[in-house]
Amino acid sequence: MIGGLIFPDMDQCDFTGPFEALSGIPNSTFLTLWKDKCIVRDMRGMQLVPDTSLKEAPQLDVLIVPGGYGQEEVEVDEEVLAFIRAQAEHALYVYPVCTGALICGAAGLLHGRKATTHWTAMGALPFYGAIPCDDRVVIDGNYVSAAGVTSGIDGSLILAAVLRGDQVAKELQLYMAYDPQPPFASGSPARASADVLSNVRARALVITEQRLASARRYAERVLDSL
Amino acid sequence: MIGGLIFPDMDQCDFTGPFEALSGIPNSTFLTLWKDKCIVRDMRGMQLVPDTSLKEAPQLDVLIVPGGYGQEEVEVDEEVLAFIRAQAEHALYVYPVCTGALICGAAGLLHGRKATTHWTAMGALPFYGAIPCDDRVVIDGNYVSAAGVTSGIDGSLILAAVLRGDQVAKELQLYMAYDPQPPFASGSPARASADVLSNVRARALVITEQRLASARRYAERVLDSL
Repeated sequence: MIGGLIFPDMDQCDFTGPFEALSGIPNSTFLTLWKDKCIVRDMRGMQLVPDTSLKEAPQLDVLIVPGGYGQEEVEVDEEVLAFIRAQAEHALYVYPVCTGALICGAAGLLHGRKATTHWTAMGALPFYGAIPCDDRVVIDGNYVSAAGVTSGIDGSLILAAVLRGDQVAKELQLYMAYDPQPPFASGSPARASADVLSNVRARALVITEQRLASARRYAERVLDSL
Repeated sequence: MIGGLIFPDMDQCDFTGPFEALSGIPNSTFLTLWKDKCIVRDMRGMQLVPDTSLKEAPQLDVLIVPGGYGQEEVEVDEEVLAFIRAQAEHALYVYPVCTGALICGAAGLLHGRKATTHWTAMGALPFYGAIPCDDRVVIDGNYVSAAGVTSGIDGSLILAAVLRGDQVAKELQLYMAYDPQPPFASGSPARASADVLSNVRARALVITEQRLASARRYAERVLDSL
Protein backbone atom coordinates (compact mmCIF):
# COMPACT_ATOMS: atom_id res chain seq x y z
CA MET A 1 0.00 0.00 0.00
CA ILE A 2 1.51 3.29 -1.18
CA GLY A 3 0.23 6.67 -0.06
CA GLY A 4 0.99 10.23 -1.01
CA LEU A 5 0.13 13.36 0.97
CA ILE A 6 -1.38 16.30 -0.83
CA PHE A 7 -1.92 19.71 0.80
CA PRO A 8 -2.83 23.29 -0.08
CA ASP A 9 -0.11 25.18 -1.98
CA MET A 10 1.94 22.05 -2.57
CA ASP A 11 3.87 21.74 -5.81
CA GLN A 12 1.72 19.16 -7.60
CA CYS A 13 4.63 17.74 -9.59
CA ASP A 14 6.35 16.57 -6.38
CA PHE A 15 3.36 14.27 -6.00
CA THR A 16 2.20 13.54 -9.55
CA GLY A 17 5.66 12.44 -10.77
CA PRO A 18 5.95 9.78 -8.04
CA PHE A 19 2.27 8.87 -8.55
CA GLU A 20 2.99 8.06 -12.20
CA ALA A 21 5.79 5.63 -11.41
CA LEU A 22 4.60 4.16 -8.12
CA SER A 23 0.91 3.72 -8.97
CA GLY A 24 2.13 1.48 -11.79
CA ILE A 25 3.81 -1.06 -9.49
CA PRO A 26 2.04 -4.40 -10.00
CA ASN A 27 -0.25 -5.62 -7.21
CA SER A 28 -0.18 -2.41 -5.24
CA THR A 29 -2.69 0.24 -4.22
CA PHE A 30 -2.07 3.98 -4.26
CA LEU A 31 -3.94 6.28 -1.88
CA THR A 32 -3.96 10.07 -2.03
CA LEU A 33 -4.21 11.49 1.48
CA TRP A 34 -5.11 14.69 3.25
CA LYS A 35 -6.96 15.81 6.38
CA ASP A 36 -10.35 15.63 4.72
CA LYS A 37 -11.64 14.69 1.29
CA CYS A 38 -12.18 18.21 0.00
CA ILE A 39 -10.46 19.71 -3.02
CA VAL A 40 -6.83 20.70 -2.49
CA ARG A 41 -5.35 23.45 -4.71
CA ASP A 42 -1.66 23.31 -5.48
CA MET A 43 0.46 26.48 -5.51
CA ARG A 44 -0.45 27.16 -9.16
CA GLY A 45 -4.12 26.27 -8.78
CA MET A 46 -4.34 22.64 -9.89
CA GLN A 47 -7.24 20.98 -8.08
CA LEU A 48 -6.67 17.52 -6.64
CA VAL A 49 -8.97 15.43 -4.45
CA PRO A 50 -7.76 13.02 -1.74
CA ASP A 51 -9.03 9.43 -1.61
CA THR A 52 -8.72 9.06 2.14
CA SER A 53 -8.41 11.24 5.21
CA LEU A 54 -5.40 11.00 7.50
CA LYS A 55 -7.65 9.57 10.24
CA GLU A 56 -8.96 6.80 7.97
CA ALA A 57 -5.63 5.96 6.34
CA PRO A 58 -4.31 2.44 6.85
CA GLN A 59 -0.66 1.74 7.67
CA LEU A 60 1.28 2.40 4.49
CA ASP A 61 4.32 0.63 3.10
CA VAL A 62 5.48 3.83 1.41
CA LEU A 63 4.55 7.38 2.36
CA ILE A 64 5.32 10.14 -0.17
CA VAL A 65 5.66 13.66 1.26
CA PRO A 66 5.75 16.37 -1.42
CA GLY A 67 6.84 19.98 -0.96
CA GLY A 68 6.01 23.37 -2.41
CA TYR A 69 5.21 26.71 -0.81
CA GLY A 70 2.54 25.10 1.41
CA GLN A 71 5.24 23.11 3.20
CA GLU A 72 5.67 26.10 5.53
CA GLU A 73 2.15 25.67 6.89
CA VAL A 74 2.26 21.87 7.00
CA GLU A 75 5.49 21.71 8.94
CA VAL A 76 3.91 23.41 11.94
CA ASP A 77 0.68 21.39 11.73
CA GLU A 78 0.80 18.90 14.59
CA GLU A 79 -1.98 16.71 13.15
CA VAL A 80 0.01 16.14 9.97
CA LEU A 81 3.36 15.74 11.75
CA ALA A 82 1.83 13.17 14.13
CA PHE A 83 0.42 11.28 11.13
CA ILE A 84 3.80 11.22 9.38
CA ARG A 85 5.58 10.11 12.58
CA ALA A 86 3.08 7.32 13.21
CA GLN A 87 3.27 6.08 9.61
CA ALA A 88 7.07 6.27 9.65
CA GLU A 89 7.28 3.84 12.56
CA HIS A 90 6.10 0.91 10.46
CA ALA A 91 6.44 2.06 6.83
CA LEU A 92 9.05 0.38 4.69
CA TYR A 93 9.99 3.75 3.23
CA VAL A 94 9.22 7.38 3.85
CA TYR A 95 9.82 9.33 0.66
CA PRO A 96 10.02 13.12 0.84
CA VAL A 97 10.28 14.91 -2.51
CA CYS A 98 11.56 18.48 -2.90
CA THR A 99 10.83 20.52 0.25
CA GLY A 100 8.82 17.60 1.61
CA ALA A 101 12.15 16.87 3.30
CA LEU A 102 11.63 19.94 5.50
CA ILE A 103 8.25 18.57 6.58
CA CYS A 104 9.84 15.24 7.49
CA GLY A 105 12.56 17.22 9.23
CA ALA A 106 9.97 19.11 11.27
CA ALA A 107 8.40 15.75 12.18
CA GLY A 108 11.75 14.93 13.77
CA LEU A 109 12.51 12.13 11.37
CA LEU A 110 15.77 13.30 9.83
CA HIS A 111 18.07 13.58 12.86
CA GLY A 112 21.45 12.23 11.77
CA ARG A 113 20.10 11.18 8.39
CA LYS A 114 21.45 12.05 4.97
CA ALA A 115 18.84 13.79 2.85
CA THR A 116 18.37 16.03 -0.17
CA THR A 117 15.80 18.71 -1.01
CA HIS A 118 15.17 21.48 -3.56
CA TRP A 119 18.45 23.32 -4.10
CA THR A 120 17.00 26.59 -2.78
CA ALA A 121 16.19 24.90 0.55
CA MET A 122 19.35 22.85 1.11
CA GLY A 123 20.57 25.27 3.77
CA ALA A 124 17.55 24.51 5.95
CA LEU A 125 18.29 20.78 6.32
CA PRO A 126 21.02 21.00 9.01
CA PHE A 127 18.62 22.83 11.35
CA TYR A 128 16.52 19.65 11.35
CA GLY A 129 19.56 17.61 12.30
CA ALA A 130 19.85 16.22 8.77
CA ILE A 131 23.05 15.80 6.78
CA PRO A 132 22.48 17.60 3.47
CA CYS A 133 23.58 15.65 0.38
CA ASP A 134 23.65 17.47 -2.91
CA ASP A 135 22.50 14.41 -4.86
CA ARG A 136 19.36 14.00 -6.93
CA VAL A 137 18.19 11.00 -4.91
CA VAL A 138 19.48 10.01 -1.46
CA ILE A 139 18.72 6.79 0.44
CA ASP A 140 19.49 6.54 4.14
CA GLY A 141 17.93 3.54 5.85
CA ASN A 142 14.22 3.62 5.17
CA TYR A 143 14.24 7.25 4.03
CA VAL A 144 14.48 8.02 0.34
CA SER A 145 14.63 11.71 -0.51
CA ALA A 146 14.55 13.36 -3.92
CA ALA A 147 15.80 16.87 -4.74
CA GLY A 148 13.66 19.46 -6.56
CA VAL A 149 10.33 18.84 -8.29
CA THR A 150 11.09 16.57 -11.29
CA SER A 151 13.70 14.57 -9.34
CA GLY A 152 10.71 12.81 -7.80
CA ILE A 153 10.49 10.78 -11.03
CA ASP A 154 14.08 9.53 -10.70
CA GLY A 155 13.58 8.79 -7.01
CA SER A 156 10.37 6.88 -7.68
CA LEU A 157 11.96 4.61 -10.26
CA ILE A 158 14.83 3.92 -7.86
CA LEU A 159 12.32 3.19 -5.10
CA ALA A 160 10.34 0.91 -7.45
CA ALA A 161 13.56 -1.01 -8.10
CA VAL A 162 14.31 -1.29 -4.37
CA LEU A 163 10.78 -2.51 -3.66
CA ARG A 164 10.23 -4.87 -6.59
CA GLY A 165 13.48 -5.28 -8.47
CA ASP A 166 15.14 -3.65 -11.45
CA GLN A 167 12.98 -5.41 -14.03
CA VAL A 168 9.78 -3.83 -12.70
CA ALA A 169 11.40 -0.39 -12.57
CA LYS A 170 12.77 -0.71 -16.09
CA GLU A 171 9.34 -1.66 -17.42
CA LEU A 172 7.77 1.33 -15.67
CA GLN A 173 10.48 3.58 -17.12
CA LEU A 174 9.80 2.29 -20.63
CA TYR A 175 6.05 2.73 -20.28
CA MET A 176 6.65 6.29 -19.01
CA ALA A 177 9.02 6.93 -21.94
CA TYR A 178 11.46 8.34 -19.42
CA ASP A 179 14.31 8.94 -21.80
CA PRO A 180 14.62 12.64 -21.05
CA GLN A 181 16.06 15.18 -23.45
CA PRO A 182 16.08 18.45 -21.50
CA PRO A 183 16.13 21.30 -24.02
CA PHE A 184 18.75 23.28 -22.08
CA ALA A 185 21.61 22.60 -19.68
CA SER A 186 19.79 24.56 -17.02
CA GLY A 187 18.35 22.02 -14.60
CA SER A 188 20.67 22.56 -11.64
CA PRO A 189 22.56 25.49 -10.06
CA ALA A 190 25.83 23.94 -11.31
CA ARG A 191 24.61 23.86 -14.91
CA ALA A 192 22.52 27.00 -15.15
CA SER A 193 24.05 30.26 -16.31
CA ALA A 194 24.75 32.93 -13.68
CA ASP A 195 21.86 35.16 -14.73
CA VAL A 196 19.35 32.29 -14.81
CA LEU A 197 20.51 31.20 -11.36
CA SER A 198 20.35 34.68 -9.87
CA ASN A 199 16.85 35.33 -11.29
CA VAL A 200 15.41 32.07 -9.94
CA ARG A 201 17.17 32.58 -6.61
CA ALA A 202 15.80 36.14 -6.38
CA ARG A 203 12.24 34.97 -7.03
CA ALA A 204 12.62 32.30 -4.34
CA LEU A 205 14.19 34.68 -1.82
CA VAL A 206 11.14 35.28 0.36
CA ILE A 207 10.17 31.60 0.68
CA THR A 208 13.82 30.64 1.16
CA GLU A 209 14.15 33.08 4.08
CA GLN A 210 10.89 31.85 5.57
CA ARG A 211 12.07 28.25 5.34
CA LEU A 212 15.36 29.08 7.01
CA ALA A 213 13.54 30.92 9.81
CA SER A 214 11.21 27.93 10.35
CA ALA A 215 14.15 25.56 10.37
CA ARG A 216 15.98 27.73 12.92
CA ARG A 217 12.91 27.75 15.14
CA TYR A 218 12.85 23.94 15.00
CA ALA A 219 16.54 23.78 15.92
CA GLU A 220 16.08 26.14 18.88
CA ARG A 221 13.04 24.27 20.14
CA VAL A 222 14.14 20.68 19.59
CA LEU A 223 17.80 20.21 18.80
CA ASP A 224 19.11 22.57 21.50
CA SER A 225 17.11 20.68 24.10
CA LEU A 226 18.20 17.19 23.05
CA MET B 1 -4.15 31.93 -21.68
CA ILE B 2 -3.09 28.30 -21.54
CA GLY B 3 -5.55 25.45 -21.15
CA GLY B 4 -5.24 21.72 -20.64
CA LEU B 5 -7.93 19.10 -21.21
CA ILE B 6 -8.46 16.45 -18.58
CA PHE B 7 -10.76 13.44 -19.07
CA PRO B 8 -11.64 10.10 -17.47
CA ASP B 9 -8.92 7.45 -17.75
CA MET B 10 -6.35 9.93 -19.01
CA ASP B 11 -2.75 9.45 -17.98
CA GLN B 12 -2.40 12.28 -15.47
CA CYS B 13 1.31 12.77 -16.13
CA ASP B 14 0.60 13.79 -19.75
CA PHE B 15 -1.18 16.77 -18.21
CA THR B 16 0.61 17.41 -14.91
CA GLY B 17 4.09 17.53 -16.49
CA PRO B 18 3.08 20.29 -18.92
CA PHE B 19 1.09 22.01 -16.14
CA GLU B 20 4.27 22.25 -14.05
CA ALA B 21 6.24 24.00 -16.76
CA LEU B 22 3.55 26.03 -18.49
CA SER B 23 1.67 27.26 -15.41
CA GLY B 24 4.97 28.87 -14.41
CA ILE B 25 5.19 31.14 -17.45
CA PRO B 26 5.11 34.74 -16.21
CA ASN B 27 1.92 36.74 -16.83
CA SER B 28 -0.14 33.80 -17.99
CA THR B 29 -3.20 31.96 -16.77
CA PHE B 30 -3.64 28.20 -16.80
CA LEU B 31 -7.12 26.64 -17.05
CA THR B 32 -7.95 22.97 -16.56
CA LEU B 33 -10.84 22.00 -18.80
CA TRP B 34 -13.46 19.29 -19.17
CA LYS B 35 -17.13 18.96 -20.09
CA ASP B 36 -18.30 19.78 -16.59
CA LYS B 37 -16.64 20.69 -13.31
CA CYS B 38 -16.99 17.28 -11.67
CA ILE B 39 -14.10 15.12 -10.49
CA VAL B 40 -12.18 13.34 -13.26
CA ARG B 41 -10.30 10.13 -12.37
CA ASP B 42 -7.19 9.30 -14.32
CA MET B 43 -6.45 5.71 -15.43
CA ARG B 44 -4.78 4.94 -12.09
CA GLY B 45 -7.37 6.70 -9.97
CA MET B 46 -5.90 10.17 -9.37
CA GLN B 47 -8.74 12.64 -8.88
CA LEU B 48 -8.49 15.99 -10.65
CA VAL B 49 -11.06 18.77 -10.89
CA PRO B 50 -11.48 21.08 -13.92
CA ASP B 51 -11.60 24.85 -13.49
CA THR B 52 -13.83 25.48 -16.46
CA SER B 53 -16.23 23.60 -18.70
CA LEU B 54 -15.64 23.34 -22.43
CA LYS B 55 -18.72 25.51 -23.03
CA GLU B 56 -17.42 28.28 -20.77
CA ALA B 57 -13.80 28.13 -21.91
CA PRO B 58 -12.37 31.27 -23.52
CA GLN B 59 -10.23 31.17 -26.65
CA LEU B 60 -6.88 29.74 -25.58
CA ASP B 61 -3.41 30.59 -26.81
CA VAL B 62 -2.21 27.07 -26.07
CA LEU B 63 -4.35 23.94 -25.78
CA ILE B 64 -2.76 20.85 -24.20
CA VAL B 65 -4.35 17.51 -25.14
CA PRO B 66 -3.14 14.61 -22.97
CA GLY B 67 -3.55 10.91 -23.70
CA GLY B 68 -3.95 7.68 -21.77
CA TYR B 69 -6.41 4.80 -22.07
CA GLY B 70 -9.36 7.22 -22.02
CA GLN B 71 -8.23 8.66 -25.35
CA GLU B 72 -10.22 5.90 -27.04
CA GLU B 73 -13.50 7.30 -25.69
CA VAL B 74 -12.59 10.94 -26.20
CA GLU B 75 -11.61 10.50 -29.83
CA VAL B 76 -15.17 9.54 -30.77
CA ASP B 77 -16.76 12.24 -28.62
CA GLU B 78 -18.03 14.90 -31.02
CA GLU B 79 -18.45 17.53 -28.29
CA VAL B 80 -14.77 17.30 -27.39
CA LEU B 81 -13.58 17.05 -30.99
CA ALA B 82 -15.62 20.12 -31.94
CA PHE B 83 -14.11 22.00 -28.98
CA ILE B 84 -10.57 21.08 -30.01
CA ARG B 85 -11.24 22.04 -33.64
CA ALA B 86 -12.74 25.39 -32.68
CA GLN B 87 -9.86 26.20 -30.32
CA ALA B 88 -7.29 25.10 -32.90
CA GLU B 89 -8.54 27.67 -35.39
CA HIS B 90 -7.23 30.59 -33.35
CA ALA B 91 -4.81 29.05 -30.82
CA LEU B 92 -1.13 29.84 -31.20
CA TYR B 93 -0.29 26.23 -30.45
CA VAL B 94 -2.13 22.95 -30.02
CA TYR B 95 -0.02 20.64 -27.92
CA PRO B 96 -0.91 16.93 -27.84
CA VAL B 97 1.12 14.83 -25.40
CA CYS B 98 1.41 11.03 -25.63
CA THR B 99 -1.73 9.54 -27.24
CA GLY B 100 -3.35 12.96 -27.14
CA ALA B 101 -2.00 13.04 -30.70
CA LEU B 102 -4.58 10.40 -31.65
CA ILE B 103 -7.34 12.65 -30.27
CA CYS B 104 -6.05 15.57 -32.35
CA GLY B 105 -5.83 13.16 -35.26
CA ALA B 106 -9.46 12.15 -34.81
CA ALA B 107 -10.36 15.86 -34.73
CA GLY B 108 -8.92 16.01 -38.24
CA LEU B 109 -6.07 18.29 -37.28
CA LEU B 110 -3.06 16.24 -38.25
CA HIS B 111 -3.59 15.70 -41.99
CA GLY B 112 -0.19 16.08 -43.61
CA ARG B 113 1.43 17.12 -40.34
CA LYS B 114 4.49 15.63 -38.69
CA ALA B 115 3.69 14.36 -35.21
CA THR B 116 4.87 12.03 -32.48
CA THR B 117 3.02 9.97 -29.86
CA HIS B 118 3.64 7.20 -27.31
CA TRP B 119 5.86 4.57 -28.96
CA THR B 120 3.15 1.90 -28.63
CA ALA B 121 0.76 4.05 -30.67
CA MET B 122 3.06 5.31 -33.41
CA GLY B 123 1.50 2.94 -35.95
CA ALA B 124 -1.88 4.62 -35.56
CA LEU B 125 -0.73 8.07 -36.69
CA PRO B 126 -0.70 7.46 -40.48
CA PHE B 127 -4.39 6.50 -40.38
CA TYR B 128 -5.10 10.07 -39.25
CA GLY B 129 -3.14 11.38 -42.21
CA ALA B 130 -0.21 12.33 -39.97
CA ILE B 131 3.46 11.79 -40.73
CA PRO B 132 4.89 9.86 -37.76
CA CYS B 133 8.22 11.18 -36.44
CA ASP B 134 10.04 9.09 -33.91
CA ASP B 135 11.31 12.15 -32.01
CA ARG B 136 10.64 13.09 -28.42
CA VAL B 137 9.18 16.46 -29.40
CA VAL B 138 7.97 17.45 -32.87
CA ILE B 139 6.93 20.90 -34.03
CA ASP B 140 5.00 21.32 -37.28
CA GLY B 141 3.48 24.77 -37.76
CA ASN B 142 1.36 25.51 -34.74
CA TYR B 143 1.27 21.90 -33.59
CA VAL B 144 3.75 20.75 -30.98
CA SER B 145 3.55 17.05 -30.11
CA ALA B 146 5.41 15.15 -27.42
CA ALA B 147 5.99 11.39 -27.32
CA GLY B 148 5.13 9.22 -24.30
CA VAL B 149 4.12 10.45 -20.84
CA THR B 150 7.23 12.18 -19.38
CA SER B 151 8.20 13.67 -22.75
CA GLY B 152 5.49 16.24 -22.02
CA ILE B 153 8.02 17.93 -19.73
CA ASP B 154 10.60 18.31 -22.52
CA GLY B 155 7.91 19.50 -24.93
CA SER B 156 6.61 22.06 -22.46
CA LEU B 157 10.01 23.61 -21.87
CA ILE B 158 10.53 23.82 -25.63
CA LEU B 159 7.10 25.41 -26.02
CA ALA B 160 7.87 27.85 -23.18
CA ALA B 161 11.01 28.87 -25.07
CA VAL B 162 9.06 29.31 -28.32
CA LEU B 163 6.41 31.41 -26.56
CA ARG B 164 8.58 33.54 -24.29
CA GLY B 165 12.22 32.96 -25.17
CA ASP B 166 15.02 30.72 -23.95
CA GLN B 167 15.69 32.68 -20.78
CA VAL B 168 12.17 32.07 -19.43
CA ALA B 169 12.38 28.37 -20.29
CA LYS B 170 15.80 28.01 -18.68
CA GLU B 171 14.55 29.63 -15.49
CA LEU B 172 11.55 27.28 -15.42
CA GLN B 173 13.87 24.32 -15.98
CA LEU B 174 16.10 25.38 -13.07
CA TYR B 175 13.14 25.89 -10.74
CA MET B 176 11.84 22.42 -11.73
CA ALA B 177 15.32 20.98 -11.15
CA TYR B 178 14.97 19.26 -14.50
CA ASP B 179 18.43 17.76 -14.65
CA PRO B 180 17.24 14.18 -15.04
CA GLN B 181 19.27 11.15 -14.03
CA PRO B 182 17.18 8.18 -15.15
CA PRO B 183 18.23 5.17 -13.07
CA PHE B 184 18.25 2.81 -16.07
CA ALA B 185 18.79 3.01 -19.82
CA SER B 186 15.24 1.83 -20.35
CA GLY B 187 13.22 4.86 -21.38
CA SER B 188 12.69 4.05 -25.06
CA PRO B 189 12.23 0.93 -27.20
CA ALA B 190 15.70 1.51 -28.65
CA ARG B 191 17.34 1.55 -25.23
CA ALA B 192 15.29 -1.03 -23.32
CA SER B 193 16.34 -4.65 -23.20
CA ALA B 194 14.41 -7.13 -25.33
CA ASP B 195 12.56 -8.69 -22.38
CA VAL B 196 11.58 -5.32 -20.90
CA LEU B 197 10.31 -4.23 -24.32
CA SER B 198 8.34 -7.41 -24.95
CA ASN B 199 6.72 -7.31 -21.49
CA VAL B 200 5.59 -3.70 -21.82
CA ARG B 201 4.43 -4.30 -25.37
CA ALA B 202 2.46 -7.38 -24.28
CA ARG B 203 0.71 -5.46 -21.50
CA ALA B 204 -0.20 -2.71 -23.97
CA LEU B 205 -1.38 -5.15 -26.64
CA VAL B 206 -5.13 -4.78 -26.09
CA ILE B 207 -5.13 -0.97 -26.03
CA THR B 208 -2.69 -0.87 -28.95
CA GLU B 209 -5.02 -3.03 -31.06
CA GLN B 210 -8.01 -0.91 -30.05
CA ARG B 211 -6.17 2.25 -31.02
CA LEU B 212 -5.23 0.82 -34.41
CA ALA B 213 -8.82 -0.24 -35.02
CA SER B 214 -10.09 3.25 -34.13
CA ALA B 215 -7.50 4.83 -36.37
CA ARG B 216 -8.48 2.55 -39.26
CA ARG B 217 -12.13 3.49 -38.79
CA TYR B 218 -11.14 7.16 -39.03
CA ALA B 219 -9.18 6.51 -42.18
CA GLU B 220 -12.06 4.64 -43.80
CA ARG B 221 -14.59 7.28 -42.83
CA VAL B 222 -12.60 10.43 -43.53
CA LEU B 223 -9.41 9.92 -45.50
CA ASP B 224 -10.90 7.59 -48.10
CA SER B 225 -13.60 10.14 -48.83
CA LEU B 226 -11.29 13.15 -49.14
